[in-house]
Amino acid sequence: MTDLDTRIRVSFDAQTMMQTPGASLVEVTPGHCVIEAPILPEVKQQHGFGHAALTFAIGDTAAGYAALSMMDPEQEVLTAEIKINLLAPARGDKLIARGEVVKFGRRLVIVSARVAAEENGKLTEIALLQGTMTPV
Amino acid sequence: MTDLDTRIRVSFDAQTMMQTPGASLVEVTPGHCVIEAPILPEVKQQHGFGHAALTFAIGDTAAGYAALSMMDPEQEVLTAEIKINLLAPARGDKLIARGEVVKFGRRLVIVSARVAAEENGKLTEIALLQGTMTPV
Amino acid sequence: MTDLDTRIRVSFDAQTMMQTPGASLVEVTPGHCVIEAPILPEVKQQHGFGHAALTFAIGDTAAGYAALSMMDPEQEVLTAEIKINLLAPARGDKLIARGEVVKFGRRLVIVSARVAAEENGKLTEIALLQGTMTPV
Amino acid sequence: MTDLDTRIRVSFDAQTMMQTPGASLVEVTPGHCVIEAPILPEVKQQHGFGHAALTFAIGDTAAGYAALSMMDPEQEVLTAEIKINLLAPARGDKLIARGEVVKFGRRLVIVSARVAAEENGKLTEIALLQGTMTPV
Repeated sequence: MTDLDTRIRVSFDAQTMMQTPGASLVEVTPGHCVIEAPILPEVKQQHGFGHAALTFAIGDTAAGYAALSMMDPEQEVLTAEIKINLLAPARGDKLIARGEVVKFGRRLVIVSARVAAEENGKLTEIALLQGTMTPV
Repeated sequence: MTDLDTRIRVSFDAQTMMQTPGASLVEVTPGHCVIEAPILPEVKQQHGFGHAALTFAIGDTAAGYAALSMMDPEQEVLTAEIKINLLAPARGDKLIARGEVVKFGRRLVIVSARVAAEENGKLTEIALLQGTMTPV
Repeated sequence: MTDLDTRIRVSFDAQTMMQTPGASLVEVTPGHCVIEAPILPEVKQQHGFGHAALTFAIGDTAAGYAALSMMDPEQEVLTAEIKINLLAPARGDKLIARGEVVKFGRRLVIVSARVAAEENGKLTEIALLQGTMTPV
Repeated sequence: MTDLDTRIRVSFDAQTMMQTPGASLVEVTPGHCVIEAPILPEVKQQHGFGHAALTFAIGDTAAGYAALSMMDPEQEVLTAEIKINLLAPARGDKLIARGEVVKFGRRLVIVSARVAAEENGKLTEIALLQGTMTPV
């Protein structure tokens, strides 16, 4: 593992909100991050699909670590604001979120993320997020 | 319980994503909904505060049920999009989300929600959400 | 005029984008700002109503000056991001935007604004904005 | 000109808010639309850059026509909501907005737009928009 990998994984592992639903950090490179989570029985909405809060959780986290991957090693990151447009129900076995940095600034980092659901090996895009991360 | 109460509670109880973190439906009246959730060890972010995904989860759900409370009994509701501005860390024992309808339309319902954190009996506003719900 | 009034008016008058459509600064107090604009023939959309860009222009500006009114005199303000939900067509003679500070921070100021349209003396709420301003 | 071109141009030409600042419809293909506008002295903010309302105006309009280009010929389009993240000041001679459809639905069309500023022939990305259009 690279130093970047290690740094992000230590932070990721400290988030119980990621551990509780079984989310995993798949990949992190400067400005990019991929996170997956299974759609378990514990994270459903009232119609039996994955809950928007799970989609939000991994989309926001992937975007946040994409931002953190470009910051100085001693910095941490916070979401200042983020918007999610839901495109389709979270149907299937797992969710995959890809976060990326749109514009890196010293005080504000603009990010986006796309979340897809995998059902029987087929991916469907279910959400698009756009937000602002701040270093702390 | 009124018919409205019963209808919303049946839907709320079917959301495992609300049951898993111990969230509860406190109150629902036409156009308004209050949801609470404890800040348990399982829903933390990397600095030990409540995770933004929990804040989002109950803010979005309170806003959604505020919308559903004004719809016809046979309708269901989906979040089309929602934006969250985070105002302060989720510090304390529990979160309280108050959702309300800003503009009720037949095809689109504009909603907002405010989320506060309670620490030693003192409330701090931690998030403001604004979004669009659609009947299905 | 108070010092605050003078400071905000000097900035407002320097914005040709406010002067061109005839917008006026009605009132500014710490954390609040009201801006009006007539719905002139020059700022219509394709169905003959006021254009969303005019609604955005005065909503964003009212929110920005609400933020600036709480900053140190030597600071300027920039919109980092803002979201607008359109509630109804901009029908009538003029638009009135009321901006306010939701949370004042040293690095980020969270703001909201409501825009109403006046037709024959009757006000209809047409837009709700929520955003982030940064001092520069 | 194709039928699509003609249909969108008729609508574009009816928007005085596009004609007033000299905006032009550069290109429209199914799901995509490009709009340009000069940064004239009439559309500045207080620091002398192009105003965010101009950036919003052409970004929102490019996104709206990207959506309209995929709708039935008798339909019109309205912005339900849109969010803009501003990445850099609007410095230079003209702005170019590229709108595209992210997800086309019968009742909601999710769109995005990127706006760039051209200064001495060099493009800088200045804004990213994400929103929801509805057919009417």
